[in-house]
Amino acid sequence: MIRTIRKGCKELSKQPSKFKMVDISPKDAVEREATAIGKLKLRNETAKKLREGKIEKGDPISISEVAATLATKNTSQLIPMCHNIPISKVETGTRFGDDYVEVEVRVKAIAKTGVEMEALTGASIYLLNVWDMVKKLEKDRNGQYPDTWIEYIKVKEKLKATK
Amino acid sequence: MIRTIRKGCKELSKQPSKFKMVDISPKDAVEREATAIGKLKLRNETAKKLREGKIEKGDPISISEVAATLATKNTSQLIPMCHNIPISKVETGTRFGDDYVEVEVRVKAIAKTGVEMEALTGASIYLLNVWDMVKKLEKDRNGQYPDTWIEYIKVKEKLKATK
Amino acid sequence: MIRTIRKGCKELSKQPSKFKMVDISPKDAVEREATAIGKLKLRNETAKKLREGKIEKGDPISISEVAATLATKNTSQLIPMCHNIPISKVETGTRFGDDYVEVEVRVKAIAKTGVEMEALTGASIYLLNVWDMVKKLEKDRNGQYPDTWIEYIKVKEKLKATK
Amino acid sequence: MIRTIRKGCKELSKQPSKFKMVDISPKDAVEREATAIGKLKLRNETAKKLREGKIEKGDPISISEVAATLATKNTSQLIPMCHNIPISKVETGTRFGDDYVEVEVRVKAIAKTGVEMEALTGASIYLLNVWDMVKKLEKDRNGQYPDTWIEYIKVKEKLKATK
Amino acid sequence: MIRTIRKGCKELSKQPSKFKMVDISPKDAVEREATAIGKLKLRNETAKKLREGKIEKGDPISISEVAATLATKNTSQLIPMCHNIPISKVETGTRFGDDYVEVEVRVKAIAKTGVEMEALTGASIYLLNVWDMVKKLEKDRNGQYPDTWIEYIKVKEKLKATK
Amino acid sequence: MIRTIRKGCKELSKQPSKFKMVDISPKDAVEREATAIGKLKLRNETAKKLREGKIEKGDPISISEVAATLATKNTSQLIPMCHNIPISKVETGTRFGDDYVEVEVRVKAIAKTGVEMEALTGASIYLLNVWDMVKKLEKDRNGQYPDTWIEYIKVKEKLKATK
Repeated sequence: MIRTIRKGCKELSKQPSKFKMVDISPKDAVEREATAIGKLKLRNETAKKLREGKIEKGDPISISEVAATLATKNTSQLIPMCHNIPISKVETGTRFGDDYVEVEVRVKAIAKTGVEMEALTGASIYLLNVWDMVKKLEKDRNGQYPDTWIEYIKVKEKLKATK
Repeated sequence: MIRTIRKGCKELSKQPSKFKMVDISPKDAVEREATAIGKLKLRNETAKKLREGKIEKGDPISISEVAATLATKNTSQLIPMCHNIPISKVETGTRFGDDYVEVEVRVKAIAKTGVEMEALTGASIYLLNVWDMVKKLEKDRNGQYPDTWIEYIKVKEKLKATK
Repeated sequence: MIRTIRKGCKELSKQPSKFKMVDISPKDAVEREATAIGKLKLRNETAKKLREGKIEKGDPISISEVAATLATKNTSQLIPMCHNIPISKVETGTRFGDDYVEVEVRVKAIAKTGVEMEALTGASIYLLNVWDMVKKLEKDRNGQYPDTWIEYIKVKEKLKATK
Repeated sequence: MIRTIRKGCKELSKQPSKFKMVDISPKDAVEREATAIGKLKLRNETAKKLREGKIEKGDPISISEVAATLATKNTSQLIPMCHNIPISKVETGTRFGDDYVEVEVRVKAIAKTGVEMEALTGASIYLLNVWDMVKKLEKDRNGQYPDTWIEYIKVKEKLKATK
Repeated sequence: MIRTIRKGCKELSKQPSKFKMVDISPKDAVEREATAIGKLKLRNETAKKLREGKIEKGDPISISEVAATLATKNTSQLIPMCHNIPISKVETGTRFGDDYVEVEVRVKAIAKTGVEMEALTGASIYLLNVWDMVKKLEKDRNGQYPDTWIEYIKVKEKLKATK
Repeated sequence: MIRTIRKGCKELSKQPSKFKMVDISPKDAVEREATAIGKLKLRNETAKKLREGKIEKGDPISISEVAATLATKNTSQLIPMCHNIPISKVETGTRFGDDYVEVEVRVKAIAKTGVEMEALTGASIYLLNVWDMVKKLEKDRNGQYPDTWIEYIKVKEKLKATK
């Protein structure tokens, strides 16, 4: 067992930390899992092309999976109060709708803290990458995106193994 | 004026690039601006505490702004087909609702390509950071987030200076 | 217990490593803590404005804390011979003087090696960020900084839990 | 012992992950070691200057070692399906030939998965850095490199401690 | 036209820079292009599966392209003496042989210095990623790779637009 | 000349940016240079060994130069309100004293904003790396550093070319 040096930290002078990073030292490293979901609303024609694998710029699903995997492993640099955690596994699932694409990102780790921020970051980066790959099809004549948005990024489920 | 070496690239062997990165060499570097918005749905009590600056873990708005600014400058590593662009300015605005917080991220650059992906990435990372700061208040007894989601991340406006 | 494959590494050919990274495999992962301090010398008026929270560019303390936290987690890319270590907790304290600001950065980790370089890196990046936020007030007419410097970055205390 | 939450992951909807990251949760963290080798073919005069420490741009061996060490610690961002692993030790060896330089990079970690990709990445980045340092000597009149190439990057040996 | 402050830099005290980064200030920013090639030697069965798109871990070509594109944009952090350059375009081509896969990476930029290191880095990272995706098929009973190596990473062509 | 889209940015809703990143769009890209200095106080014996090139862990000057060069190019990720700037040249100089080592880092860029933060970051990372290389010699029996500190990191000179 690991001995904790001090329970709380002794009071720091004058102005203490403005941001409180959770101290995870005393927590157990157990298996954790979190699944996040999210949707990208698209034009019907774009969603159809995506479903049929006909996006000219390349396969958005492949690139989004890769980018999401990298982002989950880099979450502690994107979200400053997150701890750097060794990820065991990232997995994604994609559902195609008539005018949207939905993603599900599942992250596993043996860690002292939950991995929901990693899963949410993965889902967000996934959807941003799909958007980037279909930009040409979603832009109107003035270069605007009246029909495109990301919605409902949510934690679907969070699990923690009992020791 | 810059001379282009070749118009198109000569045919590559067998299997060409699966992903087409847009060739921005021949484009003009003009001033570009893009504004993205997005919302984080919260519990009423959390939104109230956020409005009143009473989040125990620290001020979510400050940390989210900083993280969003860093992310816009790192977009080309988060979205593989994005070009690395020197950003001139990042600016954010925050609107507090009864059960949500809304962000607006504006990015400016003198660049050969638009900066909407940078603005969207900034808005996404901003909202993920607010979420991270209020996790404790949004979790239910089982560690789940029934009342929390990110929604309506959208490009509000895209501008391009005429040369 | 973990078996070590080889005690020393067998002699490499001709020219061995010019830099010796410490092999931490056989060390125990125990709780470690290190606290670093450092000062940024400022003009009296700037220090006063800082104390009173009147820096126009934004709150330097918030941004410096966030940047320092990110840097401690990224130390192994800033200092090549440092190991990548999962940080449990980063905490800062700020002291305001008549013509300076002082920081204290405390880092905790359960690790096979000490975290003083992480704390020192955090303190350095903290002070550089304060400087960046008050540049306008510290520059003289010629854009020089006659009254500004960083001094006395030091390890205040290093602790190691006994197993 | 760590309990696994689920054996396999429950089937994801419609289109599952296109890329299968290996789930390392159930694996034991034991000491691992991998050694990679590789060669950079050079002109005789360049190889001679390198051997004699007379490269004007600076010592290629020092810079290559440092860059290789950083790269091994960053492998999980360079190779998306690699896990982020805490490295215990990186060691390099250099052999000078008449018209080449050869590197050997050894990586150690206490990890749930092998470290051969880390060693191979280290060797590749090492050789690229030597190339960068001798560019001027290897270029012909037209700025081309007829006599320069990297070859035979290989895993020399992979070891795993038995528990 | 840009005025140079000083021709050479005034002599620095005692011990000057050990490494000479080329000063690219006075150079013209013109269109540059570089193409690098490289091969990964594989077992016949692996090469066949790769050709037929039957690698169980996912499509190695897609992931390698994405990783190579990211790496070219990050070359200045992988090769310390390289300048950070805005890349206009990355393009890859893949050739399948009986017992190897060959890649061609072409990089374009409007820059003050050549982009061959970016192309070479892209090709190296591409091949390392293919290797990572076929590890299971290439390993022998003892976890060694007797039949796998990277070879002949070379600059195929370097071009520079005349102003 | 580049046309600016809007002079000021139109008022953002409710709560505007807490941090003001300087908008550098309208500024001219001219040659800029900044030189930063800094000192690391050491024990006499350590300073002597450093001077004589007898540090067992490897040459601290080489590794510090490389790390400083990388850091200057990454300043915009270490200091959030800094812009990402293409650096033309980094140069360092080292002075050895009886009980200290002093560094001078000079950074050049053709940019819309000054590069003093890049030079200061380079000097800080340089000194932290020397410290890391001599840790063993500076620690006392209790693992503390009573005789070691960084001091007087300062901007020595800042220059800007007139257009």
